[in-house]
Amino acid sequence: MRLRNKPWAQDKIEEHPGIVVINPEEWKGKWAEQFNNNNPIHIEVGTGKGQFITEMSKLHPNVNYIGIERQKSIVVSAIDKIKESGQKNVRMINVNAVELNQYFAENEVHRVYLNFSDPWPKNRHEKRRLSHDSFLESYENVLIPNGEIHMKTDNQGLFEYSLHSFSKYGMVLNNVSLDLHKSGIEGNIMTEYEEKFSEKGNRIYRCEAVYRNG
Amino acid sequence: MRLRNKPWAQDKIEEHPGIVVINPEEWKGKWAEQFNNNNPIHIEVGTGKGQFITEMSKLHPNVNYIGIERQKSIVVSAIDKIKESGQKNVRMINVNAVELNQYFAENEVHRVYLNFSDPWPKNRHEKRRLSHDSFLESYENVLIPNGEIHMKTDNQGLFEYSLHSFSKYGMVLNNVSLDLHKSGIEGNIMTEYEEKFSEKGNRIYRCEAVYRNG
Repeated sequence: MRLRNKPWAQDKIEEHPGIVVINPEEWKGKWAEQFNNNNPIHIEVGTGKGQFITEMSKLHPNVNYIGIERQKSIVVSAIDKIKESGQKNVRMINVNAVELNQYFAENEVHRVYLNFSDPWPKNRHEKRRLSHDSFLESYENVLIPNGEIHMKTDNQGLFEYSLHSFSKYGMVLNNVSLDLHKSGIEGNIMTEYEEKFSEKGNRIYRCEAVYRNG
Repeated sequence: MRLRNKPWAQDKIEEHPGIVVINPEEWKGKWAEQFNNNNPIHIEVGTGKGQFITEMSKLHPNVNYIGIERQKSIVVSAIDKIKESGQKNVRMINVNAVELNQYFAENEVHRVYLNFSDPWPKNRHEKRRLSHDSFLESYENVLIPNGEIHMKTDNQGLFEYSLHSFSKYGMVLNNVSLDLHKSGIEGNIMTEYEEKFSEKGNRIYRCEAVYRNG
């Protein structure tokens, strides 16, 4: 995503502590308190402008959503969407996903969403892909047993790589779709990217990868 | 494939015992003798008219190929191709793949090819798909440790299912390609189906699924 410099972004984030949680490391193991209930927690790694997580929070009021986005200039867009929605079951945290276990305790997360992640197409950047081994390990550390990653992308290379990486990690691939928008799936919530790229006629790929550690 | 009745097929098969091995169960554990060498054995389950296996046998003279095809009326087409090629490292057997371990001993097969297998799209026919659990078990029984299945298909539903089935069985997916003919792969030998469907603009899907039993 091309980023515009938004020097006021930090101020805006700080003005919305009810949406963007400040000092998220202090909530590790206590997210149920943040939401004031024991509903399952689903996180989206790389939330972008927040359309997916906001719409999901409306559709599934009994799930708590946490969006992780490290770019301040993007977080501010998500703030607007969440604020407008009035939803109470969604939060953002402005951190790097590499340090996931600083923010979540074991078994605290019920599902991970990876939507239209940066493909990092060069081989030498493989470790930066959000479906790389090292990330799969960090998700596993915070997920419940048999936890799930739900992935969508329009990037063929990233999806091919992810199928390899998930299977190599021993995960089971469920509900694989190689052309999501022609599959007749119901209840698909689109991200901003997804709307843009599917309008161009690009295929959207999707799968659910399940840890086998139950 | 629409099948024409060919009442003379059995006669033609019997006239070519050097190509279509008669009583293949008698060669179980002894295929090296059939080929007069210890080269690795690759089998293709559902060989069809034989273009893939014949061309592969030319390209890889140090591999022995065995094509499995239960339809006599199709086996006769493969006979013509193999005969014309003059290749000595390729055989056909006219049997049902369900009974694979009647024809091969443990560790006797080095690789399994599944090319454009019947998709059996109805849920109630799932067990007939050549990537179903029960088939994966029968391939495993005859393959070397960490043996591989190389799959190609133009059928999206079959490929989606197969990715699920391979991963559920604990296999690793390598070299996944979601659009083989645009991937710049070298040395791809096309089947008759592949030529026909890729000319129509259909995507060809491919992957290598590796058993984790080494």
